[in-house]
Order: sequence, then structure tokens, then C-alpha cells
Amino acid sequence: MSYRIFATCDIGQEALDRLRQRSWQLEVYGEIEPPPKALVLEKLRSGIDALITTLRDPIDAEVFATGSSAGLKIVAQDAVGFDNIDRAAANEHKIPFSNTAEVLTDATAEFAFFMMGAVARKLWPSEQAVREGTWSTWHPYHPWLGDEVTGKTLAVIGMGRIGKSLINKAIGFDMDILCHDPGYESHSFVAAIRWLMEVRHGERLASRKQSIEFASLEDCLRKADFVSLHVNLTRPGESEEPTYHLMDERRLRMMKPTAYLLNTSRGAVVDEAALAKALHEGWIAGAALDVFETEPLPATSPLRDERLKLKIRLFNHFASAARATRLSPDPNVGMAGRCVQAVIDVLEERYEGDPRKMPFVVNKEAF
Amino acid sequence: MSYRIFATCDIGQEALDRLRQRSWQLEVYGEIEPPPKALVLEKLRSGIDALITTLRDPIDAEVFATGSSAGLKIVAQDAVGFDNIDRAAANEHKIPFSNTAEVLTDATAEFAFFMMGAVARKLWPSEQAVREGTWSTWHPYHPWLGDEVTGKTLAVIGMGRIGKSLINKAIGFDMDILCHDPGYESHSFVAAIRWLMEVRHGERLASRKQSIEFASLEDCLRKADFVSLHVNLTRPGESEEPTYHLMDERRLRMMKPTAYLLNTSRGAVVDEAALAKALHEGWIAGAALDVFETEPLPATSPLRDERLKLKIRLFNHFASAARATRLSPDPNVGMAGRCVQAVIDVLEERYEGDPRKMPFVVNKEAF
Repeated sequence: MSYRIFATCDIGQEALDRLRQRSWQLEVYGEIEPPPKALVLEKLRSGIDALITTLRDPIDAEVFATGSSAGLKIVAQDAVGFDNIDRAAANEHKIPFSNTAEVLTDATAEFAFFMMGAVARKLWPSEQAVREGTWSTWHPYHPWLGDEVTGKTLAVIGMGRIGKSLINKAIGFDMDILCHDPGYESHSFVAAIRWLMEVRHGERLASRKQSIEFASLEDCLRKADFVSLHVNLTRPGESEEPTYHLMDERRLRMMKPTAYLLNTSRGAVVDEAALAKALHEGWIAGAALDVFETEPLPATSPLRDERLKLKIRLFNHFASAARATRLSPDPNVGMAGRCVQAVIDVLEERYEGDPRKMPFVVNKEAF
Repeated sequence: MSYRIFATCDIGQEALDRLRQRSWQLEVYGEIEPPPKALVLEKLRSGIDALITTLRDPIDAEVFATGSSAGLKIVAQDAVGFDNIDRAAANEHKIPFSNTAEVLTDATAEFAFFMMGAVARKLWPSEQAVREGTWSTWHPYHPWLGDEVTGKTLAVIGMGRIGKSLINKAIGFDMDILCHDPGYESHSFVAAIRWLMEVRHGERLASRKQSIEFASLEDCLRKADFVSLHVNLTRPGESEEPTYHLMDERRLRMMKPTAYLLNTSRGAVVDEAALAKALHEGWIAGAALDVFETEPLPATSPLRDERLKLKIRLFNHFASAARATRLSPDPNVGMAGRCVQAVIDVLEERYEGDPRKMPFVVNKEAF
């Protein structure tokens, strides 16, 4: 059986070759910017079987309605998030859509860790001093110092895969861990980390016995030197404890004046206006952000204020942007591989053709 | 007994207060730039008992001769390195000099680790894209991707305190370790790390069993994804295996084209002209440097080439520049504390007044 697939983006040639090898007809929109919606609708009307999408494509009710009437069998999103996909419309038309969760766990957790180092140890101003020629003589504290990461207390808010991976990575830095998750407390994971901490201390690989404890959000904020956010974004009405503006003025004021905030989750979890105020007024020492309420970060954002340059690091939603994580054709390694596998699962009717059994389908409730 | 002390630099008020509390007379040269040598000589002639120095002060034979004839009892250097101090002259006049080794182990090792993340995960160009407004839409690999650190192989060249600390920190990132030290192989340390790796695997904190092995320098270079240098600088004639230009063209060519070089040791361990060539021609993927053959890095350095900006990170000899590491008055925590303690040890004739027994004195051979 030959199928026709339209990809709104080149998600990675090696992964896409897995579709071509099946003698399926694959058309890839090769531009950096997303295709106009009219083109996507035209492809749908022409009867494509699968649509490969990214975060930049609005996959709304019209897309699903058009696809449904022309035989569309799957929307495969090359991302974990799917804010751009109208889930209700997908369900109404019983069209499965997939995402690429899990494969970017390590890439995102390590990026959060490196963001922590970058903001605390002042890597950006340090390189700027070299490049702009303001590096003069050696001096104990001029023009500024960074703050140590080793031996500090890290609070992880949200104990999903990425939160746990971050904790795992932080152990070698003699850090104490506070963890908070309003939903699920993984006591077996914490027990394993605690055992590892005991071994490190027993083997003299740590100068003192480290600790890991569950704590309330307030205790995490009050006690930690670094607070890293790993929650889903839920807006008021979507959850009993919505995470929209979780870090608002009240909670930012709970943090220590020497503490740093890290966000690799979703931009709107942080109230950016409150954060800018917190940095200007010294409620906290600094912040590193990979996600923003509006992306790309607007030119008018208060976070860009020149006076905050020493205190804030800004990245371009880049935490998963590592080579194997993005491009590997292996569905256990790369987003592209996982995206393509979802297409194969549906078109080859794997898992008895039951979307509920397919590992990468998101809207299982529709079937 | 009241003593007089001259500090060429404000090394940290809290630490210096430990001298003032003894009712000793302390004069601090408060400028960022070092004092003119004539001023230092004038202070010596006036009969100061202790001279506190930094890397920016040339402490040569004239300084020691002048000090010796006027009662100078110690030169306390607020740094680990002492290239600026004429050891032979110190010994001739039997004046002890001290440094601040050990306290910056964790700060330097964590900085090396964050440098690795910064260059591999492209933190600098990522922030530059945000700040310069070139961040446009989301795309799987445009304009570039970083490389994962988690799960890769790290080679540590030089297994002193900092090298070992770096290995310890890398364990949580599922890294395999190759280590090389031409002098001393710490098998007990490697055994402890190996046990930790077993525990991580047994507790499912690592996806696979990690490894740590001693290897030849050549094997380290050929196999590693990241090569981090932690050796002393020895020039030809100073050692049987001098480390001057250890990373020359021949050895850079041994590295994998996907590998990164990290240097937080001494600049001249790397042949910078060869490194620039290696980066231009793609023998290696990138480099992150905190130290240079000439510091501050000259404006004409080939490492500044705009075409290398994605591949090279440049820092201002900043690895120890963390607050507690530099300024803590505690000799077990801060360089300032350790520097001041060396002055106290000598002036209060601690350790039976025997410089050979004083922990921070470098030139013990003179006594």
C-alpha cells in the first residue's frame, strides 16, 4: 500500500528516509518559516494520509475537518508540546495525533543544569568581557564574581521525567535536593537517590552527607539556592492547581535574595513582569530562562533591560536542541525518529490498528 | 606584638579583618590595577612584616632582597599559581611565600563542567540569537544544533584534585570516563567511582553501566567526546614530560572531529595557533578556554576569529571566580581566608615557627 505524506518542515532527512524506504510518497516543505495555512489545506484536500507538523503550525478545527473528509489518518507532531493542535477537533474527527515525549528528557535536564551554571558562574558576562576587551588585570572580585553551584540546595518543582533527570545529574555536585510535585511523589526514586548519596559519603566522594526531601512549594522557595521549574502549563479552569503564573510576585518574594530561578518548562509558568521587578529590586539573585510567555521573546520585553544583563540568561527555547535528540531516526533516541514512527504505526496499522495501544499517540481518549 | 602588613590589593575585607582584629597595622592598596613596583619597594623599605600579593604583582629578586634587609617575614599570594614569584630569590633570602591551593578545587571543576555544557549546547550563540533578535520561528535544526553531553565519554588529563572533582561531578550525566596522569594513578579513587557507577546502574539511575578506565594520552584523545586538561604547566627542561603545548597540531589531529577540548589549567598547555587551525579545518568540533598563552587574550588572537564563534567559548580566567571561593575568611573555604591564615601562621609563629610545617607555605625547601 502506498501512502502520501506531507511534512510542513524538514524534521531530519535520516528519519524521513524511513518513510521513503517504504516507497511512500513524501513531500517536505523545505522553508524555515512554516507553510501558509492555505497550502496545508490544499495538501489535505489532495488526500494526504499523514501530516507531519511542528510547533509553528496551527492545526485547528478547519485542518482536522478538511483532513477528515479527505482521508487524513494521523497528525504527527515533531515536538513534545502540542499547544498548536486543537485536541477537541482531533477527537471529534477521530484523527490520532502524536508527540515526541520522553526522548528529550536528558537533553532538557542537562540544558537546565548548564543554564544554572551559566547564570550562577556568569559565563555570558565573562565571555563578553573577553570579546569586548574589558578584561584587564587579575583581581579577586573585580568587576564581579559568580556564585558556586557545588554544595548548594536545588529545588525541583515538578517531578516528572525531566525533574528526576535533573536531580540525578545534580548529585555529583554535592547538592542537597528539595522536591515538590503536587500530583505524584516518587518515593522509590527518592530512596534510590538517598542510597546513592550514602554511597558517595561512605566512599568520601562527598565532603558531607547530602539530603533529598519532599517539601511544600513554599518550603522549596524559601530554602533553595536554585529553583528549577519542570511543570506542565495549566491555565485557570484547566486544573485545580493551575501553573499559569505559578511564579508570581508573591512566590518570587519567598525566594532567598541569593537564589536563582530556572525555567525550561513553559514560559507562562513565570510572570515575566514580576520577575523583571524581582531582579531589579534584588528579591532574587538571578534567573535563566529558555521559555517565555511570548516566543520569540518580544523586543520590548522588560527581561531585555540592559541593567539586568549580569543577572539574567535568555535562551531561544533551545533545551531540546541537541543533535541526536532532535534528528536521530531511532524512535528511542530522536524526536524525528519518534515522529516518523508514529506515522508508521498508524499507516501500517501496527498495534492491531488501535490508536489507544500506540505509544506515541496523545489523544487516546478519542478511540 | 604589633606587625605591619601591606596588601597590594583588596583581597576581601572580611578576611583582612582577621588581621585588623589582631591590632596589626594593615594598609591596602585599593586600586584595580597593581601598585607601581616603586611603591611596593618603598613599603618594603619602611619595614613591613608581611606582603600580600596577587598574580598581577611581579615579586622578583629585587623585592625579596629589599624585603630581606628590612625584616620582611612572608609573601602571601592570593592565588594558586605563583609564576609571578621568584622562588629562587625567596629561597636565597629564606623568606617563605604561600599560595591558596585546594580551596578552589570545586569552583574550578564545576566551571570546567559548565564550560563543557556551554560549548557543546551552544549557550552563547543561543543567547546571542535572543538578544540580537535573530531568533525567529521554531525549527528542528535551524540555524544550528548543539551536541548532547549526557552519555558521552569524558577524558580527564591530569588526575589531581580538580581532575578528580570533575570526574565526580560527571557521573550523574551517565558519562564514561577515561583518565590519564603521567605521574600518579589513584586506583582507590577510580575504584570508588566504579562502585558508584554500579550502584547507579543497579538502582536504574543510569540507563546502562558506565565505565572508568586509565588510558594513555593517545587513547584518551582518540576515544573521548570531551577532553579536559588539568595538568600543571611545565616547560621543556622543567620536566621529563613537559606540558608546554601538550595539545599541539599532532595531538589535536588525534581527537575525533566531533570532540571538544576544554582548558582550565594553564594557557600554554595548548598551542593556540594549532587550535585555531583545528577549529577552522574541522579536526575537532569545538573548544572552551578559560586560560590563554597571553592573558588578557590579545585583540589579535586568532581564537577571536568571527568564523569560529559557534565553536569556541572564551572566558576571562574566571574558573575560581566564585564568591565564597575567592572571599571567604575561612581558610578551608576561601582563597582570602587561606592567604590571611598564611600571614597569621608566620607572624604568630604557629607550627613552632617552622615554615616547613605550615600548610600554605610553598617554598618549604628553603628552611
